[in-house]
Amino acid sequence: MHKVDVSLNQDIFAENQTIAQGIQDLLHSHNIRSFDFMGAIGSGKTLIIEHLIDILPNILPDTKVGVIVGDVMGDDDYQRICKHEVPVVNINTGKECHLDAHLIEHALYKLNLSEIDFLFIENIGNLVCPADFPLGTDKRVVTISVTEGDDMVRKHPLIFQLADAIIINKIDLVDVIDVDINKIMKDIRHLGEKTVFLTNARGEKGIQSLLNWLVTP
Amino acid sequence: MHKVDVSLNQDIFAENQTIAQGIQDLLHSHNIRSFDFMGAIGSGKTLIIEHLIDILPNILPDTKVGVIVGDVMGDDDYQRICKHEVPVVNINTGKECHLDAHLIEHALYKLNLSEIDFLFIENIGNLVCPADFPLGTDKRVVTISVTEGDDMVRKHPLIFQLADAIIINKIDLVDVIDVDINKIMKDIRHLGEKTVFLTNARGEKGIQSLLNWLVTP
Repeated sequence: MHKVDVSLNQDIFAENQTIAQGIQDLLHSHNIRSFDFMGAIGSGKTLIIEHLIDILPNILPDTKVGVIVGDVMGDDDYQRICKHEVPVVNINTGKECHLDAHLIEHALYKLNLSEIDFLFIENIGNLVCPADFPLGTDKRVVTISVTEGDDMVRKHPLIFQLADAIIINKIDLVDVIDVDINKIMKDIRHLGEKTVFLTNARGEKGIQSLLNWLVTP
Repeated sequence: MHKVDVSLNQDIFAENQTIAQGIQDLLHSHNIRSFDFMGAIGSGKTLIIEHLIDILPNILPDTKVGVIVGDVMGDDDYQRICKHEVPVVNINTGKECHLDAHLIEHALYKLNLSEIDFLFIENIGNLVCPADFPLGTDKRVVTISVTEGDDMVRKHPLIFQLADAIIINKIDLVDVIDVDINKIMKDIRHLGEKTVFLTNARGEKGIQSLLNWLVTP
């Protein structure tokens, strides 16, 4: 926030980092692979996670998934994940625009870690704030959709820079809107080597490739 | 941010409110009507403002517009507004997820207020953070697009509650995506009486109604 003392911000980031490291150690001690799904509002994060839960058993039978869902308010996404019969914890941040490691630490108390192999965390829909708050996951993934325009990466480079993979969703709508995926890809290339998945989550297109990447250590 | 002292947050909000009041007084002393365009990332805020600039002279000839454009980084939106030959100031917030009154105060130094009748401020694309930081404008407008899904209002009630008008954009895409506008309207009705505009900014649909509302004191 504007005018917050810079040293205070640094304290917050440092504390988050310490807790995040503890989370990573804890998850690794349980052999859990974990993913932070960041991304724009309405970009399709929940639906992508739903598909991953459904098709993961196809390639890794008996693999167990746990999910932590972050939302400012309500439990819409939580209810959607519940239908897939996996353990899920809902975090309401109230007015906060991102999850942080401290919130995840609390959420983990509510999960039986010995019964989870993969942990998916759905962050708050926002391309700015979550960047500064790593959650201790193995990988960070950012989702955007083509319907938001082709300038999303250029306008929010930090979060894409910090991501291990980038999902460009709703590509089935490219033909009906005036968006150039090449522009997005060009902006991504400027950030360095990035793994990119083009998906249409409604049609399940691209989800299998994403899953293959997720399960590859 | 999680763990920031609550009293510190309250100080920040109170200081923002004081500066915002000063801005409102300043703008009113120059007979300027002002609007804070908040909304989701990629929801179409810039294009809507571009259309408003273009068609405003049709109903109010000789009316002058000034624009303040907020973005985390870059000048894409600024360059787009520049093409319409109106005075425009670009604000880069760096890592901040919202504009605040202090940033607007500085931006106003760069505009000749005696030559502006309408001031449009384009806030950072975000449905969480800008809510807490009124900028001293006469009206606040929130834009979402149907492509983000029909749960945007329910998930972020605060910013819609604080808005004087809500724009639901990209309605031409309703038929190609699985979104129910009635659900959005129902969530809006739960917040009380709100002015709602259904627009397709690319096709300029709904912009005239929005403009009529904007110019009506």
